[in-house]
Amino acid sequence: MIHNGIIQNTITELTHNHAAKYPYIPLHRQHIPSLPLINEIVASIKEVIFPGYSGVSAIEENALILHTGEHIYKVFNLLKHQILQTLLFEQRLNEANAEIRDKADEISCAFLERLPHIKAMLSTDVKAMFNSDPAAKSYSEVIFSYPSISALLNYRIAHELSLLNVPILPRIITELAHSTTGIDIHPGATIGSYFSIDHGTGVVIGQTTIIGNHVTLYQGVTLGAKSFTVDDEGHPQDVPRHPIIEDHVTIYSNSSILGRITIGHDTIIGGNIWLTHSVPPYSRILQTKAVMLNFTDGAGI
Amino acid sequence: MIHNGIIQNTITELTHNHAAKYPYIPLHRQHIPSLPLINEIVASIKEVIFPGYSGVSAIEENALILHTGEHIYKVFNLLKHQILQTLLFEQRLNEANAEIRDKADEISCAFLERLPHIKAMLSTDVKAMFNSDPAAKSYSEVIFSYPSISALLNYRIAHELSLLNVPILPRIITELAHSTTGIDIHPGATIGSYFSIDHGTGVVIGQTTIIGNHVTLYQGVTLGAKSFTVDDEGHPQDVPRHPIIEDHVTIYSNSSILGRITIGHDTIIGGNIWLTHSVPPYSRILQTKAVMLNFTDGAGI
Amino acid sequence: MIHNGIIQNTITELTHNHAAKYPYIPLHRQHIPSLPLINEIVASIKEVIFPGYSGVSAIEENALILHTGEHIYKVFNLLKHQILQTLLFEQRLNEANAEIRDKADEISCAFLERLPHIKAMLSTDVKAMFNSDPAAKSYSEVIFSYPSISALLNYRIAHELSLLNVPILPRIITELAHSTTGIDIHPGATIGSYFSIDHGTGVVIGQTTIIGNHVTLYQGVTLGAKSFTVDDEGHPQDVPRHPIIEDHVTIYSNSSILGRITIGHDTIIGGNIWLTHSVPPYSRILQTKAVMLNFTDGAGI
Amino acid sequence: MIHNGIIQNTITELTHNHAAKYPYIPLHRQHIPSLPLINEIVASIKEVIFPGYSGVSAIEENALILHTGEHIYKVFNLLKHQILQTLLFEQRLNEANAEIRDKADEISCAFLERLPHIKAMLSTDVKAMFNSDPAAKSYSEVIFSYPSISALLNYRIAHELSLLNVPILPRIITELAHSTTGIDIHPGATIGSYFSIDHGTGVVIGQTTIIGNHVTLYQGVTLGAKSFTVDDEGHPQDVPRHPIIEDHVTIYSNSSILGRITIGHDTIIGGNIWLTHSVPPYSRILQTKAVMLNFTDGAGI
Amino acid sequence: MIHNGIIQNTITELTHNHAAKYPYIPLHRQHIPSLPLINEIVASIKEVIFPGYSGVSAIEENALILHTGEHIYKVFNLLKHQILQTLLFEQRLNEANAEIRDKADEISCAFLERLPHIKAMLSTDVKAMFNSDPAAKSYSEVIFSYPSISALLNYRIAHELSLLNVPILPRIITELAHSTTGIDIHPGATIGSYFSIDHGTGVVIGQTTIIGNHVTLYQGVTLGAKSFTVDDEGHPQDVPRHPIIEDHVTIYSNSSILGRITIGHDTIIGGNIWLTHSVPPYSRILQTKAVMLNFTDGAGI
Amino acid sequence: MIHNGIIQNTITELTHNHAAKYPYIPLHRQHIPSLPLINEIVASIKEVIFPGYSGVSAIEENALILHTGEHIYKVFNLLKHQILQTLLFEQRLNEANAEIRDKADEISCAFLERLPHIKAMLSTDVKAMFNSDPAAKSYSEVIFSYPSISALLNYRIAHELSLLNVPILPRIITELAHSTTGIDIHPGATIGSYFSIDHGTGVVIGQTTIIGNHVTLYQGVTLGAKSFTVDDEGHPQDVPRHPIIEDHVTIYSNSSILGRITIGHDTIIGGNIWLTHSVPPYSRILQTKAVMLNFTDGAGI
Repeated sequence: MIHNGIIQNTITELTHNHAAKYPYIPLHRQHIPSLPLINEIVASIKEVIFPGYSGVSAIEENALILHTGEHIYKVFNLLKHQILQTLLFEQRLNEANAEIRDKADEISCAFLERLPHIKAMLSTDVKAMFNSDPAAKSYSEVIFSYPSISALLNYRIAHELSLLNVPILPRIITELAHSTTGIDIHPGATIGSYFSIDHGTGVVIGQTTIIGNHVTLYQGVTLGAKSFTVDDEGHPQDVPRHPIIEDHVTIYSNSSILGRITIGHDTIIGGNIWLTHSVPPYSRILQTKAVMLNFTDGAGI
Repeated sequence: MIHNGIIQNTITELTHNHAAKYPYIPLHRQHIPSLPLINEIVASIKEVIFPGYSGVSAIEENALILHTGEHIYKVFNLLKHQILQTLLFEQRLNEANAEIRDKADEISCAFLERLPHIKAMLSTDVKAMFNSDPAAKSYSEVIFSYPSISALLNYRIAHELSLLNVPILPRIITELAHSTTGIDIHPGATIGSYFSIDHGTGVVIGQTTIIGNHVTLYQGVTLGAKSFTVDDEGHPQDVPRHPIIEDHVTIYSNSSILGRITIGHDTIIGGNIWLTHSVPPYSRILQTKAVMLNFTDGAGI
Repeated sequence: MIHNGIIQNTITELTHNHAAKYPYIPLHRQHIPSLPLINEIVASIKEVIFPGYSGVSAIEENALILHTGEHIYKVFNLLKHQILQTLLFEQRLNEANAEIRDKADEISCAFLERLPHIKAMLSTDVKAMFNSDPAAKSYSEVIFSYPSISALLNYRIAHELSLLNVPILPRIITELAHSTTGIDIHPGATIGSYFSIDHGTGVVIGQTTIIGNHVTLYQGVTLGAKSFTVDDEGHPQDVPRHPIIEDHVTIYSNSSILGRITIGHDTIIGGNIWLTHSVPPYSRILQTKAVMLNFTDGAGI
Repeated sequence: MIHNGIIQNTITELTHNHAAKYPYIPLHRQHIPSLPLINEIVASIKEVIFPGYSGVSAIEENALILHTGEHIYKVFNLLKHQILQTLLFEQRLNEANAEIRDKADEISCAFLERLPHIKAMLSTDVKAMFNSDPAAKSYSEVIFSYPSISALLNYRIAHELSLLNVPILPRIITELAHSTTGIDIHPGATIGSYFSIDHGTGVVIGQTTIIGNHVTLYQGVTLGAKSFTVDDEGHPQDVPRHPIIEDHVTIYSNSSILGRITIGHDTIIGGNIWLTHSVPPYSRILQTKAVMLNFTDGAGI
Repeated sequence: MIHNGIIQNTITELTHNHAAKYPYIPLHRQHIPSLPLINEIVASIKEVIFPGYSGVSAIEENALILHTGEHIYKVFNLLKHQILQTLLFEQRLNEANAEIRDKADEISCAFLERLPHIKAMLSTDVKAMFNSDPAAKSYSEVIFSYPSISALLNYRIAHELSLLNVPILPRIITELAHSTTGIDIHPGATIGSYFSIDHGTGVVIGQTTIIGNHVTLYQGVTLGAKSFTVDDEGHPQDVPRHPIIEDHVTIYSNSSILGRITIGHDTIIGGNIWLTHSVPPYSRILQTKAVMLNFTDGAGI
Repeated sequence: MIHNGIIQNTITELTHNHAAKYPYIPLHRQHIPSLPLINEIVASIKEVIFPGYSGVSAIEENALILHTGEHIYKVFNLLKHQILQTLLFEQRLNEANAEIRDKADEISCAFLERLPHIKAMLSTDVKAMFNSDPAAKSYSEVIFSYPSISALLNYRIAHELSLLNVPILPRIITELAHSTTGIDIHPGATIGSYFSIDHGTGVVIGQTTIIGNHVTLYQGVTLGAKSFTVDDEGHPQDVPRHPIIEDHVTIYSNSSILGRITIGHDTIIGGNIWLTHSVPPYSRILQTKAVMLNFTDGAGI
C-alpha cells in the first residue's frame, strides 16, 4: 500500500517537532470559544433588539415581554460560558476555578445591563439609514434588509464587550459581520448616534477611531492608520493612530482617511481621496480632476 | 438570586414603553418574509436557469424537462406564499383575504412567464464573462464558479419582481447576493445584455442606473448618486439620480461615477477615478499621474 | 386550472430547443464537483494546519498525531474523489476508467506531500499579520479570527493543486474564501513567505502575479491586468499580464497596480493610486494632493 | 417526451375529483400543528424537568433558575402557538380571532402551572425504575438512559394537556414517545405515582385505563379494550372500556389484560396471559403449563 | 507514540486479507442506494397521497394540483436514480449503461401510474382505522397521528415496487417504517382494502402472507412461517409459508399465527395464542384459561 | 402582564428547594456524555466493520485501508473523550486530572484492539441471519437492511466496553439500537457466534443471560429475570438471574423465558410460552392447545 506509507510520512512530517517547524502556530491547550454558539448569542441579541425581524414570526404587543424574556435568558446562559472560554484562552488556563467563573458571570450581567443602551443607539442608526437612502420605504425595510444595520448591531454588541475587557470575543463578533457585509469595524472604535453606512462593502474603521453623531460613510471608505511605532520586539504599539471624525461629516466611496487626524464637523469628503492631514469644519475635499482623452480608434488605456 | 433580578430589570427596560424608547424600531404585527424560503426559491430558479450546476448531479438531455418541471412547480408554490407575505407586510395587514391571495398568485404566474427571458439574458452574460477573462477555460467553469454570475442571477430575478411591483422581496434577493459576492446591484437598475463584472467585490449599482449592452465593470466600481433633494419630512426623494452607461463601456477598478450623468458609448474609464460629469462617446479617462519619490532610508509616507 | 397551463408552457419554453435558445449555457452530462464536500476538504486541511482552532476542542500535545491522522486520511479519501470529478468534468467523460482513477489517486498523494510546505508558509504569514497589526494580542488570536489567514489558507491549498494541474477545483477553493473574506487571489499567482493582507475586503491578485517575501497589502488593492490580446475566436490569451511585486513592498488601501510591471523592493505605494508603469526599488508613490474648499453654507460637492 | 405525458396524467388522476375518489382523505384547509416545533417543546420541557440531562452541559446549582427560566419562556412561546393551531384544526377555522388566541394563551398558562406537579410525579417514577432494575447504578443513569422515563415524560405532559381539553396535540406527543420507545400510552389514561415499565417495547395502555401507585409493567403488556359498542354511524363509542389496575400490581411480559375489569391490589400476573375478567387483591395468575416433548431426531415443531 | 502503533496494527488487522477473515462481509464495489434520498422519496409520496399532512402548511383546493405536480416530478427524478442504484447493486455492475438506465426510467414511470391505486387503498385504510378506534375524532387525526397509517403507506409503496421486481429498495422502505412504528410488513405480502392495525408495535406480516379485506390486527400479532425447507447450500427456500387470512378477521394482541394455514372469514382470534393449523370461517379462538392463585403473603410467582 | 407573573412563579416553584421537592432528580454538576457524539462513534465503527454500507459510497479494494484508517482515528479521538466524560460522571468529578485522562486513553486503546474480534463475530451473525430467512437474497442485503444486524453491532460494541468497565456508555449504545429496532440487549449479556434474531421487535435479553452459538430468536422473545433479592436499602441485587441458552436453540415469537434456568442445546421452544424452569437438550415446548369455538352469529369473544 504505497498510499498508506505516504500518508504515514505526511502525518509524521506535520506533527513531529511541531514547535520548531511551525513556530507561529502555537498548539492550543486551552478551551477556545465556539463560533456556532457565538452566532447563536448574536442571533438571540438580535431578537431582543429587533424583535420579530428574523423572518420567523411576527411579534404581537403582548408577546414582546415573553419573547424578550426567552432570549435574554438564553443570551445570559450562552454568553457567560463563552466569556469563560475567552478568559481561559487569554490566561492560558486548562481548567476553570471559582474566581474566574464568577468573573464571567459578572461580566455577562454587566453586559445585559447595557442592552437597552445598545438598542437605543441602533434605533437612531435605523433612522439615519432611512434618511440617507431615497430607495428606503419604511424603517421596517431598513431593519429587515440593510447590511449596515447588521454590521452596526454586531459592532455595538462587540464594543460594549470590549469596554468590559472581554478578550477576543468582540473581534470574533465584528468579524462575523465583516464576513457577511464586507464592513470591518474594530470593536475598539467609538461611534456616536445616527450613524449610517450606505452599501458598505470595503468600509474599514480602525481600533482607535472616534466618530461623532450624524456621520455618513459610503462603501470602500477607510478610516485607518498610516504608520505606527514598533516596540522592542518588533511588534507595533497599540496607541491612538486612527482619525477623529466630528459630527455631521459625510465621506464618499473609496476614500482613505489615515492617521490620528481630525475631520472637522460638517465636512464633506468626495470619493477616491487619499487624505492624511486634518481638515477644518465645513471643508469640501475633491480629487484632482481626471485626465480626459477622446479616441475613436478603439485604443485601450 | 441577584442575576435573576438583573435579568428581570433588563427585560422590563427593553420592553416597557417600547414605542417611546425605540421610536425607529416598529414592532411587527404582520407576517414577514422568510429568508430560508427565499433562499430556497432562488436556489430552485438557479436549477431552472443553470440546470445541474448546483453540484449535486449532472442533468442528461432527457431529464431536462423533468428537472425543470420539478423546480418550476416548487418555485411557484414557494413564491406565491412569499409574495403574499410581502403584500401583507406592505399593507400592514394581519390576515390575508381572497383578493390579496389572488394578487399574489397572479404576480407569481406573471413572474414565471419572464423566466425564459431571464435565462436568455444570463446566457449572454456568461458569454461576456468568458470573453473578458483570459483565465476562463469554458462556459461551464464560468457558470460554476464566477461570483458575478451569482450576482447577476439574483439581480435579474429581483429586477423582474421589481417590475411587477413586488415590495421588499427584490431587495432581499439582491442583498443575498451582495452578502456572498460583495456586488450590490439595486433591483431597480436597468442592465442590458452581455454584461460582465470581473472580481466584483465592492461594485455598487444604484437604483436608477441605466446600463446598455456589452458593458464591463471591474471590482470596486460605484455607479452612485452624488446628492439628492429632500421632501418636507426630511426623507430624500426617489428620482433619477444615477448614471446612464451607454453600450461598450469599460470601467476599471475602484472608480466612482456619480450623479445623473451619461457615459458615452465605447468609453474606457481608468481606475480610482472620481467622476461627476458626463463624457462623450469614445472617451478615455485617467487619474492624474501620481507623485513619485525615491527614498533609500526606509522612511514611511 | 389556468396556472397549470402557464406552468406547462413555461417548462416547454425553458427546455425545448435548449442549445439554440441558450447557447452559452451548456447542459452538463458529466459529473461535477460538490461544493459541500470541497468545503469539508478545506475544513479538514485547516484542522491539519491549525490543529484545534476550529472552535470545537483544544488539542493537547499527545493528541496531535491522532488528530492529524484522522484528518489526513479524510482529506485523502474526499480529495481523490473530487479530483476525479474534475478530471471527468474537464475531459467531458461520463464514466471513469482505471487510468483516470489512478491519476486522481496520484495527484492526491502528491498534494498530501505538499502539506508540510503549505503549513510552513502559513506559519510565516501568521507572524507577518501579527507584526503588522498593533491590535493583535497573540498568534492564536490572528489564526483564530483574521480573515486574511482564511484567504491565504485557501490560496496556498489551491496554488499547490494548480501546480499539479488539477482543473477547476483550485478556482472553486479560492472563490470559497473570496465569498467570505472579500479577498480574491487567483490560484495561479505566486506568493512568497511572510505575506500579510490587512482587513482585506476588495483585494484582487491576478493569475500571473508574482509576489516576493515580506509584502503587505491593505484592503481594496488590485494587482490586475490592464489589457490583453485576443485570439482568433475573440477569447483573450492567457499570458503574463499582472504585476511583479518584489520583497518588502507595502501597498495602501484601494490602489490599482495594473499590467506586467515591476514594483521594486522596499517600495511603499500610498492609497487610491492608479499605477500602470514599473517603479524602481525604494520608491514612495502618493496620490496628487486633493482639492480642498471650505464652505460654511452647507453646499454639497 | 412520453415521461412528461405520464406525469401529467398521474397528476390529473391524483387531483381531479379528489373528494369523490379519496373520500377518507379530507383536504386540509386549516392550519395544522408542526411536528418539529412540538418536538422542540417537549425537549424544552425535558430541560425543565430533568435539567442538564440532555447531554449538552452540566447545570450547576446557581444556573438552575436561569436554565429553567430560558426554557419556561421558550415552552410558553412555542406552546401557545401550537395550541392555537390545534384549536383552529379542531374548529376547522382558516384564520384566528382574538377570542381563540386568548383561549390558547390561557390554556398555555394553565399548563405551565402544572409543570411542578409533572416534575414531582416523574421524580417518583425515577425512584420506582431504580428500585425495579438490579442493573441500575444511580438515579442519574435511569434518567439519562431508560426509555420508560422518556415515555412517561411524554405521557405526563400529554395527560395534563388532555385534561385541559387540548385537541390532537396530546396524542401527537405520546406518539412521539411511542415511535422511539415502543411504549404506547394514551394521554387519556390515569396513572399514579411510582410507576415503572421495564424494557417497555410493545406496552399498550388504553385511553380509559386507571392505574394506581407502585405498579410495574414489563415489555409487551397490553391494558386494552376487548370490544366496544358502535354508534348509529358505525363509529365505536368512547366509553370506559380498559382495565383498572390497583396499587402494588406487577404484570409480566406480553400479557394482555382486556376490558373494564379490575386487577386487585398486590396482584402479580405472569407473562403471556390473556385475561378478560377481574381478579381479587393478592392474586397470582400463571399461564397453563406448556406441553413438553423431547426429541433427538432434529424434528421441528 | 504507543497509541499510533496500536492504531496502525488495528487498521492492518481489520483490512489485511479481508475476504478470508470476514467471509460474510463482502466489500461493496457497486453503487448502493442512499437512505436519506429514499426517505425523501417516501416523504414526497406522502405529500402526494396525504397532501398537507406533513405539518408544514395547509393545502387549499386550488393549490392541490400544483402541490401534487411538484412532488410527482420530484419523486420521479429521485426514484429513477435510486432504482438505477439498486439494479446496479443487484447485477454487481460498477457503471451504468443505456439499457439499464432505460429500465430504471420505465420502472419509475410504471410506479407513478400505480400511485392513484395506492392512494385509493390508503383511503380505505384510514376509514378502517377510524372505525376501529373509539378514541379517533376525525379522519384527519387518523392520518396525522396513527403509526399504522405510516406503516401501511410504506408497505403499499414497497409492495408496488416489489411487483415491478425492483430489488432491495422495497425492503428498505418497509424497514424505515418498521424502525419508527415497530410494525414489520414484508413488501411481498398481499393485503386487501380496509386494513387496520391498532397500536401496532411488534406486528410481523411475512413475505407470502395473503390478507383479505376488512381485517384488523392488534399489537404483537405475528403472521409468520413455522419452518422451511432448505436448498442444497443450506439456504432456506422461498416458497409460500405464511398464513392466508380471509375477509373480516380480527386477531388480538400478541398472537402468533404460523405456517401456510388459512384463517376462515369472519373469525376472531383472542390474544396470546400460538396457532399453527387452519380454522374454518366464523371461528372464535381463545387461550386456555390461566391458573389463578390467591396469596396474601407477598410471595412472587 | 399576568402571563409574566405566572411564568415567574412557575420558575420559582420548579427551582426553589429543588433537592427536597424532587429527591430522585439529582442536579448534574459533572460532565455528561453527548448523545450526538456517541452516535457518531457508533456510525464510524459501523464504517470500519461494514465498510461502504452506510449508503454514501462504494469502497473499492485499494480504498479499504484508507477508509478504515480515517474512521479508526476518528473513533479513537471521539471515544477517549466520551469515556473520559463517563468516568467523570461515575466519580462525580467536576474536572479531569492527568490520571483519569490516561485511564480514558488506555481504555480506548484496549477497545480498538477488540475491533477485529467484534468484526469477526458480526461476520458470523450475517451468515446466520442469511441462513434463517428465505427472503434474503445476499449477505449484502442482510447487512444493508436487517435491523437485527444494527442491534447486534451496537450490542457487540457495548459488550466489549462493558468488559473494560466503562460506566453508562455501554447502556447508552444498546439503547440507541433499542430505540430504532425494538431489540433490547443488555451490554452485560454474553452471546456466542452465528446468532440471529428475526424481525426482532420486542426482544429483551437481560444482563446476566448467557447464549451459546447458533441460537435463533424471533420477535417478542424475552430472556428475563423472574424475581430478585433486595439489598438493605431496597435496591435489588445484581446477581445471575437470567437464562442460559445452549447451542443450536430456536425460540419462537413472544415467548418469555425467565430466571436462572438452562435451556438445553438443540431445543425448540414454540411461541407465546411462559417458561420458568430448565429444560433438557433436544426439547420441544409448545403452548397448550387453544380453545376453539365456532359461531355464525357475529358474537365477539
